[in-house]
Amino acid sequence: MTEFDRATASRPLEEGRRGVTVTDAWDTPNLTRNGGYILALMAEGMSHVSAKRDILSASVNFLKPHPLGDAAVHTEVVREGRRTATALGRLVADGVTTTTATVTFCDRTALDGALDRPDPVPPTLPDPADCIDAFGPVPRGTIKIADHFDYRHAAVPGWAQGTPSGQMEATYWTRFADGREPDDLALLLIPDAYPPVTAEIGVLGSATVQMTVHVRRRPAPGWLLVHVTTRQVADGFHDEDVDIWDATGRLVAQSRQLAIVTG
Amino acid sequence: MTEFDRATASRPLEEGRRGVTVTDAWDTPNLTRNGGYILALMAEGMSHVSAKRDILSASVNFLKPHPLGDAAVHTEVVREGRRTATALGRLVADGVTTTTATVTFCDRTALDGALDRPDPVPPTLPDPADCIDAFGPVPRGTIKIADHFDYRHAAVPGWAQGTPSGQMEATYWTRFADGREPDDLALLLIPDAYPPVTAEIGVLGSATVQMTVHVRRRPAPGWLLVHVTTRQVADGFHDEDVDIWDATGRLVAQSRQLAIVTG
Repeated sequence: MTEFDRATASRPLEEGRRGVTVTDAWDTPNLTRNGGYILALMAEGMSHVSAKRDILSASVNFLKPHPLGDAAVHTEVVREGRRTATALGRLVADGVTTTTATVTFCDRTALDGALDRPDPVPPTLPDPADCIDAFGPVPRGTIKIADHFDYRHAAVPGWAQGTPSGQMEATYWTRFADGREPDDLALLLIPDAYPPVTAEIGVLGSATVQMTVHVRRRPAPGWLLVHVTTRQVADGFHDEDVDIWDATGRLVAQSRQLAIVTG
Repeated sequence: MTEFDRATASRPLEEGRRGVTVTDAWDTPNLTRNGGYILALMAEGMSHVSAKRDILSASVNFLKPHPLGDAAVHTEVVREGRRTATALGRLVADGVTTTTATVTFCDRTALDGALDRPDPVPPTLPDPADCIDAFGPVPRGTIKIADHFDYRHAAVPGWAQGTPSGQMEATYWTRFADGREPDDLALLLIPDAYPPVTAEIGVLGSATVQMTVHVRRRPAPGWLLVHVTTRQVADGFHDEDVDIWDATGRLVAQSRQLAIVTG
């Protein structure tokens, strides 16, 4: 079993509830739980209530920091339709709901792509083999979540050299370090598995308030190409859009989060 | 009282519930309720549970078509923090939840913009007085929701002339036809108060599955500049991003929806 599957695994409790164990292995540098990890953990737990198991759309609100250890995912199905099923989820520890999510599931093999159009063109980046391992020199354990991934950049980002570029944008390849292939569950984690690009204006403190991820296609095996951008820092909050293409050049996920600037 | 305030007004019922009356005056051309209207109606009803009344972020899932007439907004506060309050909402008619929403409220006057950066530059469009009323010739009642707005375009959109451009994009000015000024509640409606830009590839049938709106600033009085784009139609679903600038050129809202292509 891969690290990610082990970290997001759930076990049945009573009807509509799954037990999970929240680990620190995917922590942010602040030693808090990573939002993408929490969302993936919840979506896995929630996915057992319907025969439709593929994720189409997931939105999440982070209410308070989630503690380590045993917790329960509470799931309520609010719609079981022909093409999609939608459920509300809560992540509960010691009787306290720390996170709420709404996930829409589908059976992707049953979707109708008759009116599909060509995918938007991915950004240009050299092949992973011709890119550099910009985060490689970071000692393991410094950024726990980053230890689970390989990242490949065309150049070392400005902020990582101590010279923020002023451009709140990043483009890079990523994959699980242990060889696990991407799927819809991974596409809930990966949009949050990178430092906020506000680092390029010298702002590293950021806490996600709300995040919505739309899974647009089933990703092919191999590297994922990620483009991140923040367009506005206003009234103390910043947006962050993440687009993810698979190794065949198809847009597989679109994520947007609103985060509070913490310094 | 303006049309919009009347259509979204709520009255107290028992604790955590507000009564609303869902009207057909904001219907889509399919004679179903407009999603943005439903979200604004829910957010108004939900806003009474906290002293924080300004909307920061709202996400909504449309589960089934909502019937006309009396309904109830059920609200559960899941977080009451220092800067924000978050609530889960359900719109219920005849015992059936048709729509779920999560709304984060704030007191915008208390937010800290010390680290703010310049807003992204709005798209270029002639002043409203130098634009055309492209939808003016549409007989009133054809698109009920459009009757509540003025729209100004640089040119008549391709699809409206029977010659779809192939470019799933639109830029236009809008304001309430009755002179109501924009506010955060209006910014939940306006992202959905325009035909889907998939019309430019000949696809007019679209039903919103999920929509998230982040309100980034309090809008100034006057016209709003709206930019709409769809980037991908895949597996029978399309995205739609809507950015809204106010009359002073500030980005006041960012919306994204995932919709199912219905033909």
